[in-house]
Amino acid sequence: MSEGNGVYRHMIRVPYAHVDQMRFVYYANYLVYFEMARTGMLREAGTPYSTLEEKGVLLPVMAAHCEYRQPAHYEDLLAVDVNFPAFKGVRFRLDYKVWRVESGAGPTPGEDALLVEGYTEHVCMSPDGKVLRPDPAFKQLAGH
Amino acid sequence: MSEGNGVYRHMIRVPYAHVDQMRFVYYANYLVYFEMARTGMLREAGTPYSTLEEKGVLLPVMAAHCEYRQPAHYEDLLAVDVNFPAFKGVRFRLDYKVWRVESGAGPTPGEDALLVEGYTEHVCMSPDGKVLRPDPAFKQLAGH
Amino acid sequence: MSEGNGVYRHMIRVPYAHVDQMRFVYYANYLVYFEMARTGMLREAGTPYSTLEEKGVLLPVMAAHCEYRQPAHYEDLLAVDVNFPAFKGVRFRLDYKVWRVESGAGPTPGEDALLVEGYTEHVCMSPDGKVLRPDPAFKQLAGH
Amino acid sequence: MSEGNGVYRHMIRVPYAHVDQMRFVYYANYLVYFEMARTGMLREAGTPYSTLEEKGVLLPVMAAHCEYRQPAHYEDLLAVDVNFPAFKGVRFRLDYKVWRVESGAGPTPGEDALLVEGYTEHVCMSPDGKVLRPDPAFKQLAGH
Repeated sequence: MSEGNGVYRHMIRVPYAHVDQMRFVYYANYLVYFEMARTGMLREAGTPYSTLEEKGVLLPVMAAHCEYRQPAHYEDLLAVDVNFPAFKGVRFRLDYKVWRVESGAGPTPGEDALLVEGYTEHVCMSPDGKVLRPDPAFKQLAGH
Repeated sequence: MSEGNGVYRHMIRVPYAHVDQMRFVYYANYLVYFEMARTGMLREAGTPYSTLEEKGVLLPVMAAHCEYRQPAHYEDLLAVDVNFPAFKGVRFRLDYKVWRVESGAGPTPGEDALLVEGYTEHVCMSPDGKVLRPDPAFKQLAGH
Repeated sequence: MSEGNGVYRHMIRVPYAHVDQMRFVYYANYLVYFEMARTGMLREAGTPYSTLEEKGVLLPVMAAHCEYRQPAHYEDLLAVDVNFPAFKGVRFRLDYKVWRVESGAGPTPGEDALLVEGYTEHVCMSPDGKVLRPDPAFKQLAGH
Repeated sequence: MSEGNGVYRHMIRVPYAHVDQMRFVYYANYLVYFEMARTGMLREAGTPYSTLEEKGVLLPVMAAHCEYRQPAHYEDLLAVDVNFPAFKGVRFRLDYKVWRVESGAGPTPGEDALLVEGYTEHVCMSPDGKVLRPDPAFKQLAGH
């Protein structure tokens, strides 16, 4: 499911659970969508995060940012693209773009709409809270 | 994606967001998984719930029940089967079974594990809160 | 905050995050409200669940049930009463009632409205998954 | 519940639902905590958000940011302070600080720990999506 627009693309159909009374996807859910794409990216790279945790490598989030350009709606089919630009020392950033690929009311005419852009920043950490040098798995992903 | 074991099968990879410090999927999330399967079933039947709502047919939940047999874990691939046994007057019930199809640590040996069973009960309702006769869309789904 | 109507009463003001596009509290959130009341009950009884977990006593949910009588809305002030009727062997049940005490639009005239009733069933479990005899902390709570 | 450190302080006891298998509050939940504080601030200012919506004033989130300094844990008592620094044209920003006031395992020695800092940016919007001039209710809150 990798696509040209990033290291990895995660697809999600918006459930009723995520939509508020403005009929918009509630803003906190995009951080969950980012995580789903992150999980998928690591999985496809052959180093699932569950395996990293068993090795004693945690990836806590140090910062998160979202810009909300257009709302997503119930039953919209969303594509979440994740990119891994580069390292900055021990800290690294992942960039995300959320697109509406198909609206809940059927295929959308014209081009895909960019709904949300954002990023997360992480470090590699040991279970007792010590910052680790980045796992080699991330070297291979960086630079996209 | 329909399968023999129900009207519709919804697949979900468990995100980190849904797992608690017991390392189990937190129990309320299964009601969201049920809804995702419900949404998918209606969609595949050609009557997406978003279209029903536009026609003025709401489907509030009147009751929900879950039996938790085994825990699901982070990155497990789950299959949520939904069945539509029959009507009881204006009220109707949907039955769900959640299976682990693949564990987060790789393909599971042996047969799929049944993790959770449950049901939801609904009525068709107008936007101003009046109970409606069941929409014809549901007649065609019932009896499975 | 204990009240006559149960062992413990938990208060929550409904956030926007919990309300769907029907303008109702989304049905899965009540299981979270039940847990908040459960956590508070144990805490007030002098045996916080976090302390139980440190002693190696987990309380997984074996079953959950909800009857939705009336919807809750954004900014409603809810009271969640929890009762502990009795043990059935190693398995025990907790009963919940969710009331609207004050509506989002100001004090509600007349009596409190009962919105949701339900229960959860639990066992005491060791971290490696063995069912334990009920912790003495629960003996003191049962029978209400 | 207003305190010196901001326009408004919202208290929340961390439920099990919000904690992940790292034993940390999952990062998306802080955006819900920010919203709870926002809702409370408007409510205390005499202009509940539910009333604003009835008047046709929506407050969609245009951007959100979090810096995660220390993790919160299950049963921690958190204080979420919200500040309203000023307007920038039609767009306005709210600043948040999340403190641990008491740990799940009992009162914390020493001073309160700052766990998370962040902000959200909003506009006032009509139900049909037009940007509105800021509601007078916000003028009275700004400048803190």
